[in-house]
Amino acid sequence: SLSISSSVMAKSKFEYVRNFETDDTCLRNCYIVVRLDGRNFHKFAEQHKFTKPNDNRALGLLTRSARSVMEELEDIVISYGQSDECSFVFKRTTNWFKRRASKLMTHVASQFSSSYVFYWKEFFGEQPLLYPPSFDGRVVLYPSNRNLRDYLSWRQADCHINNLYNTVFWTLVQKGGLTTAQAEERLKGTLAADKNEILFSEFDINYNNESLLHRKGTTLIWEKHEETVTKRMKLPNEEEKDVNVTRSRKRVQAYHCDIIGDQFWEEHPSILEDDS
Amino acid sequence: SLSISSSVMAKSKFEYVRNFETDDTCLRNCYIVVRLDGRNFHKFAEQHKFTKPNDNRALGLLTRSARSVMEELEDIVISYGQSDECSFVFKRTTNWFKRRASKLMTHVASQFSSSYVFYWKEFFGEQPLLYPPSFDGRVVLYPSNRNLRDYLSWRQADCHINNLYNTVFWTLVQKGGLTTAQAEERLKGTLAADKNEILFSEFDINYNNESLLHRKGTTLIWEKHEETVTKRMKLPNEEEKDVNVTRSRKRVQAYHCDIIGDQFWEEHPSILEDDS
Amino acid sequence: SLSISSSVMAKSKFEYVRNFETDDTCLRNCYIVVRLDGRNFHKFAEQHKFTKPNDNRALGLLTRSARSVMEELEDIVISYGQSDECSFVFKRTTNWFKRRASKLMTHVASQFSSSYVFYWKEFFGEQPLLYPPSFDGRVVLYPSNRNLRDYLSWRQADCHINNLYNTVFWTLVQKGGLTTAQAEERLKGTLAADKNEILFSEFDINYNNESLLHRKGTTLIWEKHEETVTKRMKLPNEEEKDVNVTRSRKRVQAYHCDIIGDQFWEEHPSILEDDS
Amino acid sequence: SLSISSSVMAKSKFEYVRNFETDDTCLRNCYIVVRLDGRNFHKFAEQHKFTKPNDNRALGLLTRSARSVMEELEDIVISYGQSDECSFVFKRTTNWFKRRASKLMTHVASQFSSSYVFYWKEFFGEQPLLYPPSFDGRVVLYPSNRNLRDYLSWRQADCHINNLYNTVFWTLVQKGGLTTAQAEERLKGTLAADKNEILFSEFDINYNNESLLHRKGTTLIWEKHEETVTKRMKLPNEEEKDVNVTRSRKRVQAYHCDIIGDQFWEEHPSILEDDS
Repeated sequence: SLSISSSVMAKSKFEYVRNFETDDTCLRNCYIVVRLDGRNFHKFAEQHKFTKPNDNRALGLLTRSARSVMEELEDIVISYGQSDECSFVFKRTTNWFKRRASKLMTHVASQFSSSYVFYWKEFFGEQPLLYPPSFDGRVVLYPSNRNLRDYLSWRQADCHINNLYNTVFWTLVQKGGLTTAQAEERLKGTLAADKNEILFSEFDINYNNESLLHRKGTTLIWEKHEETVTKRMKLPNEEEKDVNVTRSRKRVQAYHCDIIGDQFWEEHPSILEDDS
Repeated sequence: SLSISSSVMAKSKFEYVRNFETDDTCLRNCYIVVRLDGRNFHKFAEQHKFTKPNDNRALGLLTRSARSVMEELEDIVISYGQSDECSFVFKRTTNWFKRRASKLMTHVASQFSSSYVFYWKEFFGEQPLLYPPSFDGRVVLYPSNRNLRDYLSWRQADCHINNLYNTVFWTLVQKGGLTTAQAEERLKGTLAADKNEILFSEFDINYNNESLLHRKGTTLIWEKHEETVTKRMKLPNEEEKDVNVTRSRKRVQAYHCDIIGDQFWEEHPSILEDDS
Repeated sequence: SLSISSSVMAKSKFEYVRNFETDDTCLRNCYIVVRLDGRNFHKFAEQHKFTKPNDNRALGLLTRSARSVMEELEDIVISYGQSDECSFVFKRTTNWFKRRASKLMTHVASQFSSSYVFYWKEFFGEQPLLYPPSFDGRVVLYPSNRNLRDYLSWRQADCHINNLYNTVFWTLVQKGGLTTAQAEERLKGTLAADKNEILFSEFDINYNNESLLHRKGTTLIWEKHEETVTKRMKLPNEEEKDVNVTRSRKRVQAYHCDIIGDQFWEEHPSILEDDS
Repeated sequence: SLSISSSVMAKSKFEYVRNFETDDTCLRNCYIVVRLDGRNFHKFAEQHKFTKPNDNRALGLLTRSARSVMEELEDIVISYGQSDECSFVFKRTTNWFKRRASKLMTHVASQFSSSYVFYWKEFFGEQPLLYPPSFDGRVVLYPSNRNLRDYLSWRQADCHINNLYNTVFWTLVQKGGLTTAQAEERLKGTLAADKNEILFSEFDINYNNESLLHRKGTTLIWEKHEETVTKRMKLPNEEEKDVNVTRSRKRVQAYHCDIIGDQFWEEHPSILEDDS
C-alpha cells in the first residue's frame, strides 16, 4: 500500500485521466430542454396502488418535485408535466454550469428524484413508499421559439391522446364491466370521435367536462406577485410602529390549460425571448 | 383550445421536434464511468451536523445508495465512493440503454438521489433530513484497463490526501484548541510527512492506524457466494423431506482497501476484461 | 493468407467495427457554416511570390475555387472569402448528407482543394504550382439570422482590419523604404485613424479609394437571371424557324461590398430564411 | 458602410460568435482513423475512361496522393487504399491539432484532393483531367489494437470480395461476350467458389495468380532505411577528403500483401503501440 507522501506524487501521475473528459457544452442561443421519464412506472404504479386512469396524489407529487427543481435552478423558465414525465426548459441565454449538458440533466434528474421521495408523505400520507423510484433524462436543444412551442405542444397533444384513451378504457372496465383484454379489443382502431361517443352514449360522460389537470397536464412558470408584510420599525423619535412593506417577488405558479394555442403565450409574454 | 381529433393530427404535426435529439452513444469497447458529486455539500453537512473530519452515518448512507444503484444497474462492475462523491464503472461491453450517455448518467444520478433520501433514516435515525439534496454527474470513457485503474487510483489518492489534511486540521481544532483560521495557517505549505509528524508528536496519533474506511474510501464489487437454503421436497415415494439446496448467488460486497496497487486486482480478476 | 470464401465470412466477422462510428448530425433549424483556412499560407505565398499586400491572382483563384464548391453543393446560399480563408453557409433546412458534419466539411474541403490546383493555371499562367496546398476546416452552427450575420460581419471586420494594417505596412516598406522590422515598429500601438493618416499625409493615399476587393473581400451568392437562347424549331406546317427562348436560371454572382450593414441583405432577401 | 475605426469596435462586438464553435477532441488513447471515399467515382471513372475491372493509373494516383498525405502528417502510422477509398490511421498518442476531429479529417481530405490533381499528369500523362474530383471523409476511433486490425481487415476483405466480383464480371463481358446485364444475371447468387470456378473452367484464369495490387490493395507504412551519402570533409591537417556518411532515415513504403493475418504485423512490430 502507498504511503501518503507517495500518494501525493501518485495523484499527479494519475491526473492525466482528466483529459479523457469531453466537452458537451450546449450550442448557444438555443433553448435547453431536459425531459425526465419514470423508469418502470407501470410496475411502480401498480405496486403503490395508483388509481386508474389518473392518480391525483401521484400527479401532485410530480408537480411538487418539478417545483422543487425550478426553485433550485432558477434559469428554468417553464416546465410541463403529465403522467410520469416532466420537461424543464432553460432560458436561451442561460449560463448555468456553463451550459454543460451532462451537468444540467444530472442535476435536474437528481433534484427531481430526491424531491419525489422527500415529498412522498405529503401526498401519500401513511401509505409507504416501497422502494426508491428512478427517472431517466435527456437533453434536447431548440433554436427557435416556434420549435420550442412545438415541442411543448407535442407533449400536451400526447397527454390529450393518452388521457382520452385511458379514460375510455378504464370507464369500460370500471363501469362497463369489461375485462382489460375486452376493453383493449373494443378500442382497437377507434378514432377520437368514436371514443368520445362511447363515453357520451354509453356512460353519459362528456369528456370535455373531465378535469383540466388530467386533460391538459401541469404547466409551471414563474410569476411576479406583490407580497405585503407587516414590519415593526423604529421611528426617528425612537418610537416603534407597525409598517406595511410591499415587495415584488417571484414564485412558481401552476396552470392546467391549453399551451398549444397562442392565448397562454400572449398572456405570459416574458417566458420566451425574441428570436434573434 | 383544440378538440381531441385535431390534437391527434396536431401531434403528428409537432412530432418533427423529435429529430432535434442528438445521438450520444458511448464509443464501444471503452469502460463507461459515471461520477456523481454532491451539490453544495459543505452547507448540507453543516446543516445536518455532520461530525468532522468524517461522519460515519453520511459515509454509510453514501455506500447504501451506491449499492442501490449497483443492484438496479447490474452492468456496473465496480463503484468507488469517498467524501460526497461516487464513481460507477460500467463494463466495457455493456449495452445498457444502448450505451447512451445521457440515459446512463441520469439513471445513475436519479437512483442514487432517491435512495439517499429513502435510506436516510437507516443511518440518521430520528435526525430529520431538512431538504432534498442533489448530486451532479458526468460520463467519462476509458479505453484500457490501465486508464481505468489510473482513474480509480486518482480518486483514491485524492481521498488519501484530503483525509490526511482533514484529520490534522480537525485534530488541531478539536484537540489542539486552534481556531479554524489558525489551523489553516498552521498547515499552509506543509507536506504529507509534516502532517504525519504533527499528528504523531503533538497528539500521539499514528495516521496509519486511522480507520481504513476514512483513509481508503469504499469500493463495491459483485461477489459470488454459496447460499444454502432448506427446502421441503416431495420424494418419489410421496414422502416429504427437508433438503439442503446450495446455490451460487452474486451480491455486492464492500472493501476499504488499497485499489492503487496490484493486489486487489489480482484477488478479483473478474472485474476487468482483457484489453483487446 | 485467407482464401476468398473465408474472406466473405471474415468480412461479416469484422463488420462490427462499423458500430464505432458516431453520429454527428447537425442540430436542425440552424445555419451550418463551414470555414476553410489555408495551412502554412505564409510560406506558400512566399514560395509562389504573391505580391504584397494583396495578390489578385491568388484572390481570383480563391474565389474561383469557392464558386466551384457552390456549384457542386447547391444548398450553400452564401460564401465569403478573404485572404486565405473562405466560409460557406448551408441553408438552415438543408438535408445534404443528412446534415452530417463530417461529410459536409470534408466534401467542402476536398472540392475546394482540388479546384485550387485545377484552376491554378487560369490565374497564375506559366508560373508553376510547386506543391499541393492544403486547407483545414471546421463546422459551426448558428441558430438565428442575427447570429449568422454577426458571424459574417466578424469575418468582414477582420478583413477590414488586416487589410488596412497590411496596406500601411507594405506602403512603408515599398514606398517609404523602411525595413519590415522598422515598419512593424512604426505601426506598434497605432489606431485605425493613425494608419489612415500615415497613408494620407505621407503617401497621398486615401484608403477609402483602395480596391473594394481588398477592403471588403468577396461574397458569392446565387442569383436568378434571364437567359435568352435561339432555338431552331419546327412549326406545325413543317417549316423550320429560329425562335428566341427565355429561361430563368441561377448562377453564382460575386460582390465586393459591405455585408455588415442592412443594405446588402435588404437587396438580397432570399439568402436568409425567417427565424421560426 | 462602416468606417475602419468603427469596424475595430465592431469586430469585438461580433466576436461572441466564436463561442458557438464546439469542441470535438477525440478520446485519448484511441487510434484515430480518417477514411476518404471518392464522390461519384462511377461517373468519374467512366468519363476518364478507367480500364475495367482495375485501372492501374488510377490506383497509382490514389497511392501517390495517400503518400503525400502521410508525408505531410507524420503521425499517420499506416494507410490502406483500394478502389476509390483510402483509410489513414493516426497513432494512439498523437496530439496533432490537439486531436480535434474536424481539423484532422479536413486536413487529410484537403491534402489528398489537391495531391490527386497535382499528380494526375504523372499517371495519366496527356489525358486531361476534366474537372476537379472530390472525396468525403469521416473519423472513427478504435480503442484497441484488435479493433484497429479488425477495421483494416474489414476494408481488405471488402477489397477481396469486390475484386473477385469485378474480375469475373468484366471477364464475362470482355472475353465471354456477355452484355453487362447478362453478366450481372449470371453472377446473381453465386458464391466465391462459383466465381473462381467460372474463371478457371471457362477462361483458364486462376484468380490466385491475379495481381496482388488488385487482390490486396495498397498498404503504406513508414520504414527506416540506411542512406549513405558522400560528403567532402576537412581533415584536422586542413586537407579535404571524401567521406561516406550513413544516416538512418524514414520513408513511406508500399505493400500489396495480406494484412488480415498476423504475419504482416509480426514483421512490422512498430506500427502498433501496446494496449495499455
